Amino acid sequence: MSRIIECVPNFSEGQRQEIIDEIISSIISVEGVTLLDKEADPDHNRAVITFIGEPEKVKQAAFNAVEKASELIDMEKHKGEHPRMGATDVVPFIPISGTTMEDCAKLAHELGKEIGEKLGIPIFLYGEAASSEFPERKNLSVVRKGQYEGLKKVIETDPSRKPDYGPSKMHPRAGATAVGARMPLIAYNVNLNTTDLKIAKTIAKTIREKDGGFPFVKAMGFDIQDKGIVQVSMNLTNYLETSIYTVFNEIKRLCEEQNVEILESELIGLAPMDSLLETSIKYLKLKTFNVNQVLENHLMD
Amino acid sequence: MSRIIECVPNFSEGQRQEIIDEIISSIISVEGVTLLDKEADPDHNRAVITFIGEPEKVKQAAFNAVEKASELIDMEKHKGEHPRMGATDVVPFIPISGTTMEDCAKLAHELGKEIGEKLGIPIFLYGEAASSEFPERKNLSVVRKGQYEGLKKVIETDPSRKPDYGPSKMHPRAGATAVGARMPLIAYNVNLNTTDLKIAKTIAKTIREKDGGFPFVKAMGFDIQDKGIVQVSMNLTNYLETSIYTVFNEIKRLCEEQNVEILESELIGLAPMDSLLETSIKYLKLKTFNVNQVLENHLMD
Repeated sequence: MSRIIECVPNFSEGQRQEIIDEIISSIISVEGVTLLDKEADPDHNRAVITFIGEPEKVKQAAFNAVEKASELIDMEKHKGEHPRMGATDVVPFIPISGTTMEDCAKLAHELGKEIGEKLGIPIFLYGEAASSEFPERKNLSVVRKGQYEGLKKVIETDPSRKPDYGPSKMHPRAGATAVGARMPLIAYNVNLNTTDLKIAKTIAKTIREKDGGFPFVKAMGFDIQDKGIVQVSMNLTNYLETSIYTVFNEIKRLCEEQNVEILESELIGLAPMDSLLETSIKYLKLKTFNVNQVLENHLMD
Repeated sequence: MSRIIECVPNFSEGQRQEIIDEIISSIISVEGVTLLDKEADPDHNRAVITFIGEPEKVKQAAFNAVEKASELIDMEKHKGEHPRMGATDVVPFIPISGTTMEDCAKLAHELGKEIGEKLGIPIFLYGEAASSEFPERKNLSVVRKGQYEGLKKVIETDPSRKPDYGPSKMHPRAGATAVGARMPLIAYNVNLNTTDLKIAKTIAKTIREKDGGFPFVKAMGFDIQDKGIVQVSMNLTNYLETSIYTVFNEIKRLCEEQNVEILESELIGLAPMDSLLETSIKYLKLKTFNVNQVLENHLMD
């Protein structure tokens, strides 16, 4: 099975489609890279591109995109609602299959170094790629504090804002870029056969991390009025730590306590194969299962 | 996601490795075809090759292999324990993903016609590719009755043994070949935390088709003495009709009746992705799930 990494760079352009298209072209010009999604938000004036491939291919495609964005986007003229500090604002690498978080962090360091040296853009490592020198940079909002305009004022003088790679000086058009590593995000909802919103809200509160629930779980309760049901809507930000199977079983247990039935659940968008197979493996108590037993995986050799 | 078919041809040569290697070379010479497995049995004097790819590629690779086998294997000199009637004895096509049994049956007809016309080998369609004229040929043992030597005596005169394609006459060296379509076979075992072999045998009998259980399920009870457990060992010959999830749940129910615990289960060899994901989908009550939500499937475009 191939070694696969996902990359979801964000660019500070959400209005001029021809610029977004040029950036996408620079990505898919790398053979072996597959475009999964592209979303442009005019209000945020920001585009989010999702692609996957083998590590070296993905790194090359990311470099191409950062280079292209630095030619086409001028941060001196950029306005938008979403916080941002560069033409390419943020480049996360995400382990999908046959790769680890360490692989992604290493790739972030390599890409950061290359961008810094070849394009003269200051690079801040964030997320799981944050350096030991600046551990607070695990949190992207620390890196992006003050946004483009604020960072420009302090980057040359404040030692705590020194880039990990590249010059200690904003690129005159492209600003600065955060390069990092994180887990994939799984958007997963469970629908309950009741109109009692309080039950969904209580369950959401019980399972989410910020209220003492499972780590890496964000959850909210919603009313789906047109269907006469309520929903526990979740983001799982590290499925290796807290999985779909784990949150489903806990919600099932909490529902049984309240005599409420789970109507159905739904996966929004994409998820890695192992995050979905885990439920089968656990429920069937499958021993010594490995993903190479999935016949189709041999097509990706 | 790609359209994928599996092909598992059987050849009447299990001793001379150089001949088996030449046949394999003719298969993998087709770009886009992936070799999954090769097994040679000297006693049976028979080799089984497993490969996958897109339908047209798989058909081309199968034709190459049949042609090569007809050049290298002489049925007049073949001896072996396994029933056989040709240098290439049997060629089944199996739907894996994005393809149906109808696609496989159609491919079997196309390949059969091509072999008959270009190589002069009589072709019998079997399994789900059996023609309406000879429905009894769904059963391979009907097609292969009398084996090479017996078929040779009657093929020119017995209307019930008329080939579907090619001449009504054995190929002087390669004999005759069966080409067909069938579902993938899933080998799946459930281990019970007891030393009472009777329980495994009773459960096997309850769930298997021949004793009135689930369709397309073969099952036997075994003693795994070195582990102090017993095993229900199964072949699921059509997982769309009776799935892993279905047999597991029934075994679980029967075990609970006997106060016996399921220790673990095990998948032997490969299985299609959807046969494994089904348990997750059913257990989580996932609605509107489709395989394109598996991130890795986008790599196979």
